[in-house]
Amino acid sequence: MARIALGIEYDGSQFCGWQTQPDGCAVQDAVERALAEIAGHGVATICAGRTDAGVHALAQTVHFDTGATRPLSAWSRGVNALLPDAIAVTWAQPVSDDFHARYGALERCYRYLLTDQHVRPALNRNHIGWIHQTLDIERMQAAAKSLIGIHDFSAFRSSECQASSPVRELRRIRIERCGDCVVFDLAANAFLHHMVRNIVGSLVYVGSGRQPPQWVQQILEGRNRTRAAPTISAAGLYLSGVTYEAGFNLPQTRRSIWFNVPVQ
Amino acid sequence: MARIALGIEYDGSQFCGWQTQPDGCAVQDAVERALAEIAGHGVATICAGRTDAGVHALAQTVHFDTGATRPLSAWSRGVNALLPDAIAVTWAQPVSDDFHARYGALERCYRYLLTDQHVRPALNRNHIGWIHQTLDIERMQAAAKSLIGIHDFSAFRSSECQASSPVRELRRIRIERCGDCVVFDLAANAFLHHMVRNIVGSLVYVGSGRQPPQWVQQILEGRNRTRAAPTISAAGLYLSGVTYEAGFNLPQTRRSIWFNVPVQ
Repeated sequence: MARIALGIEYDGSQFCGWQTQPDGCAVQDAVERALAEIAGHGVATICAGRTDAGVHALAQTVHFDTGATRPLSAWSRGVNALLPDAIAVTWAQPVSDDFHARYGALERCYRYLLTDQHVRPALNRNHIGWIHQTLDIERMQAAAKSLIGIHDFSAFRSSECQASSPVRELRRIRIERCGDCVVFDLAANAFLHHMVRNIVGSLVYVGSGRQPPQWVQQILEGRNRTRAAPTISAAGLYLSGVTYEAGFNLPQTRRSIWFNVPVQ
Repeated sequence: MARIALGIEYDGSQFCGWQTQPDGCAVQDAVERALAEIAGHGVATICAGRTDAGVHALAQTVHFDTGATRPLSAWSRGVNALLPDAIAVTWAQPVSDDFHARYGALERCYRYLLTDQHVRPALNRNHIGWIHQTLDIERMQAAAKSLIGIHDFSAFRSSECQASSPVRELRRIRIERCGDCVVFDLAANAFLHHMVRNIVGSLVYVGSGRQPPQWVQQILEGRNRTRAAPTISAAGLYLSGVTYEAGFNLPQTRRSIWFNVPVQ
Protein backbone atom coordinates (compact mmCIF):
# COMPACT_ATOMS: atom_id res chain seq x y z
CA MET A 1 0.00 0.00 0.00
CA ALA A 2 1.16 3.51 -0.83
CA ARG A 3 -0.09 6.78 0.64
CA ILE A 4 -0.58 9.69 -1.77
CA ALA A 5 -1.21 13.32 -0.87
CA LEU A 6 -3.04 15.71 -3.22
CA GLY A 7 -3.51 19.46 -3.42
CA ILE A 8 -7.02 20.31 -4.66
CA GLU A 9 -8.67 23.51 -5.89
CA TYR A 10 -12.44 23.75 -6.24
CA ASP A 11 -15.35 26.05 -6.92
CA GLY A 12 -17.60 25.29 -3.95
CA SER A 13 -20.63 26.99 -5.51
CA GLN A 14 -21.18 23.82 -7.53
CA PHE A 15 -21.22 21.41 -4.55
CA CYS A 16 -22.95 20.67 -1.25
CA GLY A 17 -19.66 20.97 0.65
CA TRP A 18 -16.57 18.78 0.93
CA GLN A 19 -17.97 15.90 2.95
CA THR A 20 -19.47 12.88 1.18
CA GLN A 21 -23.29 12.82 0.90
CA PRO A 22 -25.68 9.99 0.11
CA ASP A 23 -26.69 11.67 -3.17
CA GLY A 24 -23.06 12.12 -4.23
CA CYS A 25 -23.22 15.92 -4.55
CA ALA A 26 -20.09 16.61 -2.46
CA VAL A 27 -16.60 17.51 -3.64
CA GLN A 28 -15.32 14.40 -1.84
CA ASP A 29 -17.73 12.22 -3.84
CA ALA A 30 -16.48 13.62 -7.16
CA VAL A 31 -12.82 13.30 -6.13
CA GLU A 32 -13.24 9.72 -4.88
CA ARG A 33 -15.08 8.70 -8.05
CA ALA A 34 -12.22 9.98 -10.21
CA LEU A 35 -9.53 8.42 -7.98
CA ALA A 36 -11.34 5.07 -8.00
CA GLU A 37 -11.32 5.05 -11.80
CA ILE A 38 -7.56 5.53 -11.85
CA ALA A 39 -6.90 3.15 -8.94
CA GLY A 40 -9.21 0.41 -10.11
CA HIS A 41 -10.57 0.10 -6.56
CA GLY A 42 -12.66 2.19 -4.15
CA VAL A 43 -10.70 5.06 -2.60
CA ALA A 44 -11.37 6.84 0.72
CA THR A 45 -9.89 10.30 1.17
CA ILE A 46 -9.11 12.26 4.34
CA CYS A 47 -9.02 16.06 3.99
CA ALA A 48 -7.47 18.91 5.96
CA GLY A 49 -10.64 21.00 6.14
CA ARG A 50 -14.23 19.92 5.60
CA THR A 51 -15.52 23.01 3.84
CA ASP A 52 -19.26 23.80 3.88
CA ALA A 53 -21.60 24.12 0.90
CA GLY A 54 -20.60 27.07 -1.25
CA VAL A 55 -17.13 27.42 0.31
CA HIS A 56 -14.18 27.25 -2.10
CA ALA A 57 -10.67 25.86 -1.84
CA LEU A 58 -7.48 27.22 -3.34
CA ALA A 59 -5.40 24.65 -1.48
CA GLN A 60 -7.33 21.79 0.08
CA THR A 61 -5.01 18.93 1.05
CA VAL A 62 -6.11 15.27 1.14
CA HIS A 63 -4.50 11.86 1.44
CA PHE A 64 -5.56 8.35 0.45
CA ASP A 65 -4.10 4.84 0.41
CA THR A 66 -3.88 2.67 -2.66
CA GLY A 67 -2.49 -0.69 -3.66
CA ALA A 68 -2.36 0.42 -7.28
CA THR A 69 1.01 1.36 -8.80
CA ARG A 70 0.58 4.32 -11.12
CA PRO A 71 2.89 7.04 -12.45
CA LEU A 72 2.51 10.14 -10.31
CA SER A 73 1.00 12.08 -13.24
CA ALA A 74 -1.95 9.64 -13.19
CA TRP A 75 -2.96 11.09 -9.79
CA SER A 76 -2.84 14.66 -11.10
CA ARG A 77 -3.32 14.96 -14.87
CA GLY A 78 -5.10 11.61 -15.10
CA VAL A 79 -7.52 12.47 -12.30
CA ASN A 80 -8.05 15.98 -13.71
CA ALA A 81 -9.24 14.49 -16.98
CA LEU A 82 -11.98 12.65 -15.04
CA LEU A 83 -12.96 15.36 -12.56
CA PRO A 84 -15.75 17.92 -13.13
CA ASP A 85 -14.46 21.28 -14.42
CA ALA A 86 -15.09 22.87 -11.03
CA ILE A 87 -12.41 20.69 -9.33
CA ALA A 88 -8.71 20.36 -10.16
CA VAL A 89 -5.83 18.46 -8.57
CA THR A 90 -2.96 20.99 -8.38
CA TRP A 91 -0.27 18.50 -7.25
CA ALA A 92 0.17 14.85 -6.23
CA GLN A 93 2.97 13.44 -4.12
CA PRO A 94 3.76 10.11 -2.41
CA VAL A 95 3.96 10.50 1.38
CA SER A 96 5.02 8.22 4.23
CA ASP A 97 2.43 6.31 6.27
CA ASP A 98 2.69 8.78 9.15
CA PHE A 99 1.32 11.62 7.01
CA HIS A 100 -2.29 12.46 7.87
CA ALA A 101 -4.03 15.30 6.01
CA ARG A 102 -6.32 16.09 8.94
CA TYR A 103 -4.41 15.25 12.14
CA GLY A 104 -1.03 16.26 10.71
CA ALA A 105 -2.14 19.76 9.71
CA LEU A 106 -0.26 22.28 11.86
CA GLU A 107 -2.09 25.32 10.54
CA ARG A 108 -5.03 26.18 8.30
CA CYS A 109 -5.45 29.49 6.46
CA TYR A 110 -8.76 30.80 5.21
CA ARG A 111 -9.36 33.84 3.05
CA TYR A 112 -12.61 35.78 2.98
CA LEU A 113 -13.30 38.15 0.08
CA LEU A 114 -15.92 40.82 0.67
CA THR A 115 -16.94 43.65 -1.62
CA ASP A 116 -18.38 46.78 -0.04
CA GLN A 117 -19.51 48.56 -3.19
CA HIS A 118 -23.10 49.81 -3.16
CA VAL A 119 -24.32 47.63 -6.06
CA ARG A 120 -24.51 43.83 -5.72
CA PRO A 121 -21.72 42.04 -7.63
CA ALA A 122 -22.90 40.25 -10.79
CA LEU A 123 -19.70 38.88 -12.28
CA ASN A 124 -18.31 37.01 -9.28
CA ARG A 125 -21.46 36.77 -7.20
CA ASN A 126 -20.71 33.17 -6.13
CA HIS A 127 -17.11 33.97 -5.21
CA ILE A 128 -17.32 37.03 -3.02
CA GLY A 129 -19.39 38.23 -0.07
CA TRP A 130 -21.18 41.59 -0.35
CA ILE A 131 -22.17 44.33 2.05
CA HIS A 132 -23.54 47.62 0.73
CA GLN A 133 -21.83 49.86 3.28
CA THR A 134 -18.25 51.08 3.03
CA LEU A 135 -16.12 49.37 5.65
CA ASP A 136 -13.48 51.05 7.80
CA ILE A 137 -10.42 48.80 7.59
CA GLU A 138 -8.58 50.29 10.57
CA ARG A 139 -11.56 49.79 12.89
CA MET A 140 -11.74 46.12 11.88
CA GLN A 141 -7.97 45.68 12.29
CA ALA A 142 -8.20 47.15 15.81
CA ALA A 143 -11.12 44.87 16.69
CA ALA A 144 -9.40 41.77 15.29
CA LYS A 145 -6.40 42.11 17.62
CA SER A 146 -8.42 40.88 20.59
CA LEU A 147 -9.05 37.56 18.81
CA ILE A 148 -5.38 36.67 18.35
CA GLY A 149 -4.11 33.95 20.69
CA ILE A 150 -5.51 30.85 22.40
CA HIS A 151 -9.17 31.43 23.26
CA ASP A 152 -12.47 29.71 23.85
CA PHE A 153 -14.20 30.64 20.57
CA SER A 154 -17.70 29.48 21.61
CA ALA A 155 -19.09 32.89 20.61
CA PHE A 156 -18.09 32.24 16.98
CA ARG A 157 -19.01 28.56 16.82
CA SER A 158 -21.97 27.07 14.97
CA SER A 159 -24.54 25.25 17.09
CA GLU A 160 -23.87 22.23 14.84
CA CYS A 161 -20.13 22.21 15.55
CA GLN A 162 -18.94 18.71 16.42
CA ALA A 163 -15.52 19.65 17.87
CA SER A 164 -14.91 18.37 21.40
CA SER A 165 -13.30 21.62 22.52
CA PRO A 166 -14.12 25.25 21.61
CA VAL A 167 -10.50 26.31 22.23
CA ARG A 168 -8.42 27.26 19.21
CA GLU A 169 -5.25 29.23 18.61
CA LEU A 170 -5.93 32.05 16.16
CA ARG A 171 -2.45 33.06 15.02
CA ARG A 172 -2.93 35.84 12.50
CA ILE A 173 -5.68 38.00 11.06
CA ARG A 174 -4.74 40.26 8.18
CA ILE A 175 -7.32 42.68 6.77
CA GLU A 176 -6.48 44.63 3.62
CA ARG A 177 -8.39 46.71 1.15
CA CYS A 178 -7.88 45.86 -2.52
CA GLY A 179 -9.95 48.38 -4.48
CA ASP A 180 -13.61 47.88 -3.63
CA CYS A 181 -12.85 44.49 -2.08
CA VAL A 182 -11.73 43.71 1.46
CA VAL A 183 -9.47 40.68 1.88
CA PHE A 184 -9.51 38.90 5.28
CA ASP A 185 -6.78 36.28 5.87
CA LEU A 186 -7.09 34.15 9.02
CA ALA A 187 -4.59 31.53 10.22
CA ALA A 188 -5.18 29.13 13.13
CA ASN A 189 -4.12 25.68 14.27
CA ALA A 190 -7.70 24.70 13.37
CA PHE A 191 -11.10 26.35 13.06
CA LEU A 192 -14.48 25.55 14.59
CA HIS A 193 -17.54 25.12 12.36
CA HIS A 194 -18.51 28.53 10.86
CA MET A 195 -15.74 30.21 12.88
CA VAL A 196 -14.28 32.25 10.00
CA ARG A 197 -17.70 33.34 8.72
CA ASN A 198 -18.85 34.29 12.23
CA ILE A 199 -15.68 36.26 12.96
CA VAL A 200 -15.85 38.10 9.62
CA GLY A 201 -19.55 38.80 10.19
CA SER A 202 -18.77 40.39 13.56
CA LEU A 203 -15.82 42.38 12.19
CA VAL A 204 -18.16 43.75 9.52
CA TYR A 205 -20.45 45.06 12.28
CA VAL A 206 -17.45 47.03 13.52
CA GLY A 207 -16.27 48.12 10.06
CA SER A 208 -19.70 49.47 9.16
CA GLY A 209 -19.91 51.45 12.41
CA ARG A 210 -22.72 49.41 13.91
CA GLN A 211 -20.55 48.33 16.86
CA PRO A 212 -17.37 49.77 18.43
CA PRO A 213 -14.07 47.86 18.01
CA GLN A 214 -14.04 46.66 21.65
CA TRP A 215 -17.39 44.92 21.05
CA VAL A 216 -15.59 41.99 19.37
CA GLN A 217 -13.58 41.32 22.54
CA GLN A 218 -16.76 41.49 24.62
CA ILE A 219 -18.42 38.96 22.30
CA LEU A 220 -15.39 36.65 22.52
CA GLU A 221 -15.32 36.82 26.31
CA GLY A 222 -19.09 36.33 26.56
CA ARG A 223 -18.78 32.94 24.80
CA ASN A 224 -22.39 33.29 23.69
CA ARG A 225 -23.02 32.69 19.97
CA THR A 226 -26.37 34.47 20.07
CA ARG A 227 -24.71 37.82 20.90
CA ALA A 228 -22.38 37.86 17.88
CA ALA A 229 -23.31 38.99 14.36
CA PRO A 230 -24.99 36.62 11.87
CA THR A 231 -22.89 34.13 9.90
CA ILE A 232 -21.72 35.83 6.71
CA SER A 233 -22.34 34.26 3.26
CA ALA A 234 -20.31 31.19 2.24
CA ALA A 235 -19.66 32.67 -1.22
CA GLY A 236 -16.60 34.70 -0.16
CA LEU A 237 -14.80 31.96 1.79
CA TYR A 238 -11.71 30.06 0.57
CA LEU A 239 -9.55 27.42 2.24
CA SER A 240 -6.33 29.07 1.13
CA GLY A 241 -3.54 27.03 2.71
CA VAL A 242 -2.66 24.12 4.99
CA THR A 243 0.73 23.69 6.67
CA TYR A 244 2.39 20.37 7.59
CA GLU A 245 5.76 19.41 9.09
CA ALA A 246 8.45 20.61 6.68
CA GLY A 247 9.85 17.07 6.60
CA PHE A 248 6.92 15.95 4.41
CA ASN A 249 8.24 18.39 1.81
CA LEU A 250 4.84 19.06 0.24
CA PRO A 251 4.55 21.52 -2.66
CA GLN A 252 3.45 25.03 -1.72
CA THR A 253 1.08 25.79 -4.56
CA ARG A 254 -0.38 29.15 -3.74
CA ARG A 255 -2.49 30.37 -6.59
CA SER A 256 -2.67 34.09 -6.90
CA ILE A 257 -5.50 34.07 -9.40
CA TRP A 258 -7.83 35.80 -6.96
CA PHE A 259 -6.53 39.29 -6.24
CA ASN A 260 -3.02 40.51 -6.09
CA VAL A 261 -2.77 40.11 -2.33
CA PRO A 262 -0.50 37.11 -1.73
CA VAL A 263 -2.01 34.30 0.32
CA GLN A 264 -0.40 34.19 3.78
CA MET B 1 -39.56 61.13 -23.90
CA ALA B 2 -36.44 60.93 -21.78
CA ARG B 3 -33.16 59.21 -22.64
CA ILE B 4 -31.47 57.22 -19.86
CA ALA B 5 -27.93 55.81 -19.89
CA LEU B 6 -26.96 52.76 -17.80
CA GLY B 7 -23.70 51.15 -16.75
CA ILE B 8 -24.05 47.36 -16.73
CA GLU B 9 -21.87 44.55 -15.34
CA TYR B 10 -22.50 40.93 -16.34
CA ASP B 11 -21.21 37.40 -16.17
CA GLY B 12 -21.25 36.41 -19.82
CA SER B 13 -20.85 32.69 -19.07
CA GLN B 14 -24.59 32.59 -18.35
CA PHE B 15 -25.71 34.10 -21.68
CA CYS B 16 -25.53 33.67 -25.46
CA GLY B 17 -23.93 37.12 -25.85
CA TRP B 18 -25.26 40.68 -25.59
CA GLN B 19 -27.43 40.83 -28.70
CA THR B 20 -31.11 39.88 -28.49
CA GLN B 21 -31.99 36.36 -29.65
CA PRO B 22 -35.33 34.78 -30.60
CA ASP B 23 -35.14 32.44 -27.58
CA GLY B 24 -34.43 35.32 -25.18
CA CYS B 25 -31.10 33.94 -23.93
CA ALA B 26 -29.13 37.18 -24.46
CA VAL B 27 -28.06 39.76 -21.89
CA GLN B 28 -30.00 42.36 -23.88
CA ASP B 29 -33.19 40.27 -23.58
CA ALA B 30 -32.86 40.06 -19.80
CA VAL B 31 -32.10 43.78 -19.47
CA GLU B 32 -34.99 44.82 -21.72
CA ARG B 33 -37.43 42.55 -19.85
CA ALA B 34 -36.47 44.18 -16.53
CA LEU B 35 -36.57 47.72 -17.97
CA ALA B 36 -39.99 47.06 -19.53
CA GLU B 37 -41.37 46.03 -16.15
CA ILE B 38 -40.23 49.31 -14.59
CA ALA B 39 -41.24 51.44 -17.59
CA GLY B 40 -44.60 49.81 -18.15
CA HIS B 41 -43.86 49.67 -21.88
CA GLY B 42 -41.49 47.82 -24.21
CA VAL B 43 -37.93 49.16 -24.09
CA ALA B 44 -35.25 48.95 -26.79
CA THR B 45 -31.63 49.38 -25.70
CA ILE B 46 -28.55 50.38 -27.69
CA CYS B 47 -25.18 49.24 -26.29
CA ALA B 48 -21.57 50.33 -26.72
CA GLY B 49 -20.19 46.86 -27.44
CA ARG B 50 -22.08 43.76 -28.58
CA THR B 51 -20.12 41.17 -26.63
CA ASP B 52 -20.10 37.54 -27.80
CA ALA B 53 -21.34 34.47 -25.92
CA GLY B 54 -19.22 33.89 -22.82
CA VAL B 55 -17.68 37.40 -22.85
CA HIS B 56 -18.15 39.45 -19.69
CA ALA B 57 -18.65 43.15 -19.01
CA LEU B 58 -17.34 45.22 -16.16
CA ALA B 59 -18.61 48.40 -17.76
CA GLN B 60 -21.04 47.96 -20.64
CA THR B 61 -22.86 51.20 -21.44
CA VAL B 62 -26.38 51.33 -22.92
CA HIS B 63 -29.08 53.91 -23.54
CA PHE B 64 -32.83 53.71 -24.01
CA ASP B 65 -35.78 56.08 -24.41
CA THR B 66 -38.83 56.07 -22.20
CA GLY B 67 -41.99 58.08 -21.73
CA ALA B 68 -42.27 56.86 -18.15
CA THR B 69 -41.32 59.21 -15.33
CA ARG B 70 -39.53 57.28 -12.60
CA PRO B 71 -37.09 58.21 -9.84
CA LEU B 72 -33.53 57.51 -11.02
CA SER B 73 -33.13 54.72 -8.44
CA ALA B 74 -35.90 52.79 -10.23
CA TRP B 75 -33.55 52.39 -13.21
CA SER B 76 -30.72 51.05 -11.04
CA ARG B 77 -31.91 49.47 -7.77
CA GLY B 78 -35.38 48.79 -9.12
CA VAL B 79 -34.06 47.12 -12.27
CA ASN B 80 -31.45 45.18 -10.26
CA ALA B 81 -34.23 43.63 -8.19
CA LEU B 82 -35.73 42.25 -11.42
CA LEU B 83 -32.53 41.22 -13.22
CA PRO B 84 -30.95 37.75 -13.04
CA ASP B 85 -28.10 37.55 -10.48
CA ALA B 86 -25.56 37.45 -13.30
CA ILE B 87 -26.41 41.02 -14.44
CA ALA B 88 -26.31 44.26 -12.44
CA VAL B 89 -26.91 47.91 -13.32
CA THR B 90 -24.00 49.81 -11.74
CA TRP B 91 -25.35 53.32 -12.44
CA ALA B 92 -28.22 55.11 -14.20
CA GLN B 93 -28.22 58.67 -15.45
CA PRO B 94 -30.48 60.87 -17.61
CA VAL B 95 -28.73 62.02 -20.79
CA SER B 96 -29.57 64.45 -23.57
CA ASP B 97 -31.07 63.23 -26.84
CA ASP B 98 -27.73 63.54 -28.63
CA PHE B 99 -26.16 60.83 -26.45
CA HIS B 100 -25.78 57.53 -28.29
CA ALA B 101 -24.20 54.55 -26.49
CA ARG B 102 -22.86 53.07 -29.73
CA TYR B 103 -22.08 55.94 -32.08
CA GLY B 104 -21.04 58.31 -29.31
CA ALA B 105 -18.40 55.98 -27.86
CA LEU B 106 -14.98 57.54 -28.38
CA GLU B 107 -13.02 54.61 -27.04
CA ARG B 108 -13.62 51.03 -25.88
CA CYS B 109 -11.34 49.13 -23.50
CA TYR B 110 -11.23 45.37 -23.23
CA ARG B 111 -9.34 43.30 -20.68
CA TYR B 112 -8.21 39.73 -21.27
CA LEU B 113 -7.25 37.58 -18.27
CA LEU B 114 -5.09 34.55 -19.01
CA THR B 115 -3.54 32.13 -16.56
CA ASP B 116 -0.38 30.30 -17.62
CA GLN B 117 -0.12 27.85 -14.73
CA HIS B 118 0.35 24.20 -15.71
CA VAL B 119 -2.92 22.96 -14.17
CA ARG B 120 -6.30 24.01 -15.59
CA PRO B 121 -8.12 26.55 -13.39
CA ALA B 122 -11.12 25.14 -11.51
CA LEU B 123 -12.30 28.07 -9.41
CA ASN B 124 -12.65 30.72 -12.09
CA ARG B 125 -12.72 28.51 -15.15
CA ASN B 126 -15.46 30.59 -16.83
CA HIS B 127 -13.72 33.89 -16.12
CA ILE B 128 -10.16 33.38 -17.30
CA GLY B 129 -8.38 31.95 -20.32
CA TRP B 130 -5.77 29.22 -19.80
CA ILE B 131 -2.58 28.17 -21.52
CA HIS B 132 -0.33 25.55 -19.93
CA GLN B 133 2.97 27.17 -20.96
CA THR B 134 4.68 29.98 -19.09
CA LEU B 135 4.47 33.18 -21.14
CA ASP B 136 7.28 35.69 -21.61
CA ILE B 137 5.73 39.10 -20.94
CA GLU B 138 8.53 41.16 -22.50
CA ARG B 139 8.36 39.25 -25.78
CA MET B 140 4.61 39.90 -25.98
CA GLN B 141 5.09 43.58 -25.11
CA ALA B 142 7.65 43.90 -27.90
CA ALA B 143 5.32 42.18 -30.38
CA ALA B 144 2.32 44.30 -29.36
CA LYS B 145 4.04 47.58 -30.26
CA SER B 146 3.62 46.93 -33.98
CA LEU B 147 -0.18 46.86 -33.54
CA ILE B 148 -0.45 50.35 -32.05
CA GLY B 149 -1.84 52.95 -34.43
CA ILE B 150 -4.33 53.11 -37.30
CA HIS B 151 -4.18 49.85 -39.26
CA ASP B 152 -6.19 47.51 -41.45
CA PHE B 153 -6.85 44.73 -38.91
CA SER B 154 -8.20 42.19 -41.42
CA ALA B 155 -5.72 39.62 -40.07
CA PHE B 156 -7.44 39.72 -36.68
CA ARG B 157 -11.03 39.93 -37.90
CA SER B 158 -13.61 37.17 -37.73
CA SER B 159 -15.01 35.96 -41.05
CA GLU B 160 -18.43 36.86 -39.63
CA CYS B 161 -17.49 40.47 -38.92
CA GLN B 162 -20.15 42.87 -40.25
CA ALA B 163 -18.12 46.09 -40.02
CA SER B 164 -17.89 48.02 -43.30
CA SER B 165 -14.20 48.83 -42.81
CA PRO B 166 -11.37 46.73 -41.31
CA VAL B 167 -9.48 49.88 -40.24
CA ARG B 168 -9.33 50.64 -36.52
CA GLU B 169 -7.13 52.78 -34.29
CA LEU B 170 -5.57 50.63 -31.57
CA ARG B 171 -4.41 53.18 -29.03
CA ARG B 172 -2.87 51.20 -26.19
CA ILE B 173 -1.95 47.63 -25.31
CA ARG B 174 -0.75 47.01 -21.77
CA ILE B 175 0.46 43.53 -20.80
CA GLU B 176 1.25 42.83 -17.14
CA ARG B 177 1.89 39.76 -15.05
CA CYS B 178 -0.12 39.47 -11.85
CA GLY B 179 1.06 36.26 -10.16
CA ASP B 180 0.19 33.30 -12.38
CA CYS B 181 -2.16 35.48 -14.43
CA VAL B 182 -1.38 37.71 -17.39
CA VAL B 183 -3.56 40.81 -17.79
CA PHE B 184 -3.95 42.27 -21.32
CA ASP B 185 -5.61 45.71 -21.58
CA LEU B 186 -6.46 46.96 -25.07
CA ALA B 187 -7.96 50.35 -25.95
CA ALA B 188 -9.20 51.36 -29.42
CA ASN B 189 -11.73 53.66 -31.01
CA ALA B 190 -13.64 50.46 -31.77
CA PHE B 191 -12.89 46.76 -32.28
CA LEU B 192 -13.72 44.36 -35.09
CA HIS B 193 -15.49 41.07 -34.36
CA HIS B 194 -13.11 38.73 -32.43
CA MET B 195 -10.31 41.32 -32.76
CA VAL B 196 -9.22 41.23 -29.09
CA ARG B 197 -9.34 37.42 -28.90
CA ASN B 198 -7.42 37.08 -32.17
CA ILE B 199 -4.75 39.57 -31.12
CA VAL B 200 -4.31 37.94 -27.70
CA GLY B 201 -4.17 34.50 -29.34
CA SER B 202 -1.37 35.68 -31.62
CA LEU B 203 0.53 37.40 -28.80
CA VAL B 204 0.36 34.10 -26.89
CA TYR B 205 2.11 32.39 -29.80
CA VAL B 206 4.94 34.88 -29.26
CA GLY B 207 4.90 34.66 -25.46
CA SER B 208 5.15 30.88 -25.54
CA GLY B 209 8.11 30.99 -27.94
CA ARG B 210 6.25 29.47 -30.87
CA GLN B 211 6.73 32.59 -33.00
CA PRO B 212 9.24 35.49 -32.84
CA PRO B 213 7.96 38.96 -31.81
CA GLN B 214 8.20 40.36 -35.34
CA TRP B 215 5.75 37.67 -36.53
CA VAL B 216 2.82 39.73 -35.19
CA GLN B 217 3.73 42.65 -37.46
CA GLN B 218 4.04 40.26 -40.42
CA ILE B 219 0.59 38.88 -39.66
CA LEU B 220 -0.89 42.39 -39.39
CA GLU B 221 0.66 43.44 -42.70
CA GLY B 222 -0.42 40.22 -44.41
CA ARG B 223 -4.10 41.03 -43.68
CA ASN B 224 -4.86 37.34 -43.92
CA ARG B 225 -6.88 35.90 -41.02
CA THR B 226 -5.85 32.33 -41.81
CA ARG B 227 -2.19 33.07 -41.02
CA ALA B 228 -2.79 34.37 -37.47
CA ALA B 229 -3.20 32.19 -34.35
CA PRO B 230 -6.59 30.67 -33.41
CA THR B 231 -9.18 32.79 -31.60
CA ILE B 232 -8.56 32.46 -27.86
CA SER B 233 -11.37 31.41 -25.47
CA ALA B 234 -14.15 33.90 -24.67
CA ALA B 235 -13.93 33.08 -20.94
CA GLY B 236 -11.12 35.54 -20.21
CA LEU B 237 -12.55 38.56 -22.06
CA TYR B 238 -14.14 41.61 -20.37
CA LEU B 239 -15.54 44.84 -21.81
CA SER B 240 -13.82 46.96 -19.18
CA GLY B 241 -14.59 50.56 -20.13
CA VAL B 242 -16.24 52.88 -22.65
CA THR B 243 -15.38 56.56 -23.02
CA TYR B 244 -17.76 59.33 -24.15
CA GLU B 245 -17.46 63.10 -24.52
CA ALA B 246 -16.70 64.52 -21.07
CA GLY B 247 -19.70 66.84 -21.45
CA PHE B 248 -22.07 63.91 -20.89
CA ASN B 249 -20.53 63.63 -17.44
CA LEU B 250 -21.15 59.90 -17.09
CA PRO B 251 -19.99 58.08 -13.95
CA GLN B 252 -16.66 56.28 -14.25
CA THR B 253 -17.45 53.10 -12.35
CA ARG B 254 -14.37 50.97 -12.71
CA ARG B 255 -14.68 47.90 -10.59
CA SER B 256 -11.39 46.55 -9.33
CA ILE B 257 -12.86 43.30 -8.08
CA TRP B 258 -10.92 41.31 -10.65
CA PHE B 259 -7.22 41.64 -9.87
CA ASN B 260 -5.38 44.53 -8.41
CA VAL B 261 -4.34 45.92 -11.77
CA PRO B 262 -6.41 49.06 -12.32
CA VAL B 263 -8.52 49.10 -15.46
CA GLN B 264 -7.09 51.58 -17.99
